[in-house]
Amino acid sequence: MTKTRLEAFSDGVIAILITIMVLELKVPHGDSLDELRPLTPVFLSYVLSFVYLGIYWNNHHHMLHAVHSVTGPVLWANLHLLFWLSLIPFTTGWMGENHFAALPTALYGIVLFMAAVAYWILQQSIIASQGAGSLLKKAVGTDWKGKLSPFFYLIAIGAAFWTTWISEALYVFTALLWLVPDRRIEAVLPRNEE
Amino acid sequence: MTKTRLEAFSDGVIAILITIMVLELKVPHGDSLDELRPLTPVFLSYVLSFVYLGIYWNNHHHMLHAVHSVTGPVLWANLHLLFWLSLIPFTTGWMGENHFAALPTALYGIVLFMAAVAYWILQQSIIASQGAGSLLKKAVGTDWKGKLSPFFYLIAIGAAFWTTWISEALYVFTALLWLVPDRRIEAVLPRNEE
Amino acid sequence: MTKTRLEAFSDGVIAILITIMVLELKVPHGDSLDELRPLTPVFLSYVLSFVYLGIYWNNHHHMLHAVHSVTGPVLWANLHLLFWLSLIPFTTGWMGENHFAALPTALYGIVLFMAAVAYWILQQSIIASQGAGSLLKKAVGTDWKGKLSPFFYLIAIGAAFWTTWISEALYVFTALLWLVPDRRIEAVLPRNEE
Amino acid sequence: MTKTRLEAFSDGVIAILITIMVLELKVPHGDSLDELRPLTPVFLSYVLSFVYLGIYWNNHHHMLHAVHSVTGPVLWANLHLLFWLSLIPFTTGWMGENHFAALPTALYGIVLFMAAVAYWILQQSIIASQGAGSLLKKAVGTDWKGKLSPFFYLIAIGAAFWTTWISEALYVFTALLWLVPDRRIEAVLPRNEE
Repeated sequence: MTKTRLEAFSDGVIAILITIMVLELKVPHGDSLDELRPLTPVFLSYVLSFVYLGIYWNNHHHMLHAVHSVTGPVLWANLHLLFWLSLIPFTTGWMGENHFAALPTALYGIVLFMAAVAYWILQQSIIASQGAGSLLKKAVGTDWKGKLSPFFYLIAIGAAFWTTWISEALYVFTALLWLVPDRRIEAVLPRNEE
Repeated sequence: MTKTRLEAFSDGVIAILITIMVLELKVPHGDSLDELRPLTPVFLSYVLSFVYLGIYWNNHHHMLHAVHSVTGPVLWANLHLLFWLSLIPFTTGWMGENHFAALPTALYGIVLFMAAVAYWILQQSIIASQGAGSLLKKAVGTDWKGKLSPFFYLIAIGAAFWTTWISEALYVFTALLWLVPDRRIEAVLPRNEE
Repeated sequence: MTKTRLEAFSDGVIAILITIMVLELKVPHGDSLDELRPLTPVFLSYVLSFVYLGIYWNNHHHMLHAVHSVTGPVLWANLHLLFWLSLIPFTTGWMGENHFAALPTALYGIVLFMAAVAYWILQQSIIASQGAGSLLKKAVGTDWKGKLSPFFYLIAIGAAFWTTWISEALYVFTALLWLVPDRRIEAVLPRNEE
Repeated sequence: MTKTRLEAFSDGVIAILITIMVLELKVPHGDSLDELRPLTPVFLSYVLSFVYLGIYWNNHHHMLHAVHSVTGPVLWANLHLLFWLSLIPFTTGWMGENHFAALPTALYGIVLFMAAVAYWILQQSIIASQGAGSLLKKAVGTDWKGKLSPFFYLIAIGAAFWTTWISEALYVFTALLWLVPDRRIEAVLPRNEE
């Protein structure tokens, strides 16, 4: 089985997810600035999730670059990842509409955590399918970002019930961690092979 | 006619279907756990349908692997399959919102049954287009899964009016039948060539 | 410019249109058959439009087969066709929700008519871009279906204000005209080169 | 990294955006012409945004033609462009529903302005990635359209608070500027190398 359709299908699902989130930005009936203001938290959570889905699409893209043939387990691990990503529009909408309240903020983190786990499972199933001398295994290296991110999400989930701003800050920080090009981070962190 | 656009179009439709189902998970207005709880059946039916659409995408993918040219009847048989799949978000939403009541559960099975029939018609029309020595005919083999599934759906439809949990169990069991890798089943069932 | 992205974009738009129409099938709150019955006209108009969009996708597919390079006018003629097709979910929903009332039925025909005109413009702009000895011109032949369909839509639009069942019958009949394989029609109509 | 998936993903997002805008055309409950009339401004703003998204798709298509490999900055510049385009359905709906009132008209222009800036950043990041002798740099030429458009949007944003018809006229005019084939404009404007 070739990877072309797997890529096309994943691209399709992520493109739809990134776009239907904007439907949560409900068009207000009035035309004043006061009508627009309550949408601010919905807009901010939209921006955050847009960036996260962009990161996932970007990383997915890179990961599949090191793949040649797709096995059954890889295909289902990919669908499993898409499942958790598909819940992001829901958690984004809930968090935005409730102005970053505790429970929605925690649930947002839970879905991010599950997506990170699903991404890791997908990575492992590809490495397993490639056997010894796996190209992806070499490319991934120590994968400190992939290992650190779920840890940050867990702290954010716990912190949400104490003060949600720590959680939000952690979500933004983790996103930035992936956005900033590695070369800059290389100087800060001694062992970075990703 | 080549199969590339048929694959791309089918992938697009299935990717959209699997994603718009999540729109039935309406964002609740409050931020408490009590607001989230009523969504449980909607979520469970979403998971079930996500798996079913994933199985269809997966099988569709495999089936088209054995195809080289696409004839008119194959193209329309494919659209016919997509039509029944397109009703899954509706039946999923209806079954979820009504907490797995009898009629919605039966209708869910009817659409699954029709999709299975449509899949069989597509398979037959491809085999017919390939003539004697059809590659797909050999690949399909006895196709015991494809033959058994519609039978399970029919039982589930009937059982829904008696007790819906039998129906739900059958829907889950049939999905698992397709998910579990064949090699394990090979040991249990003597004649399995799919 | 190659035609690959034009095909991919058109496939994407048509796949989305054919799928979002199903969102007009609003999930009823109750679980009885009485709740489902009012959806019948919405469902029937959905089936009709599904078939029409399937025909357009199919024909679009065939037409682009005879195309090698895409010029600016062809690209905009294609977007013009997609524009009219994009209004089909709206007219479908309006006609279905109003149980095939006069005005919605007429508007449904107007959009079908405009889509047929847009398809013809696209065909002509491709033929023009290919110059003398156009491959598509030969393939299209007398194009009696393409010439007859807009005429049927016009009759249906007029008939809607008298009795809508004639309009609906004409919409169904025109769709069948495109669905039925040409070889059968060849026997009935003496001059058919499409 | 190849550009195929970047194109496919961008096509997917733009195809979805151009299509979900039509969901703002809410199906009216009654079947009379009076029910349809209030939709006129929503329809007109839909047509305008359809043309704008068509122009962006078209230009994006052309720009990527001159690209061979995709770097990290190009990928994120592309996602940044898609972000601003993803807000067009929202601003279109708000402007249409409020019959081209001042603030929604201004916001429509702000998003168009930001999309134009994002397009320019994408262009620059591609040129930078190609180094000296960039193919795209030559193809873009003086890029008078790309430089003039944001200027027109800024005037339109300011004019919206005085009289919105100037803004609308500027939005339509700028769209026409991109639609009209360059050869005609060549005669009018002496220096046009785009």
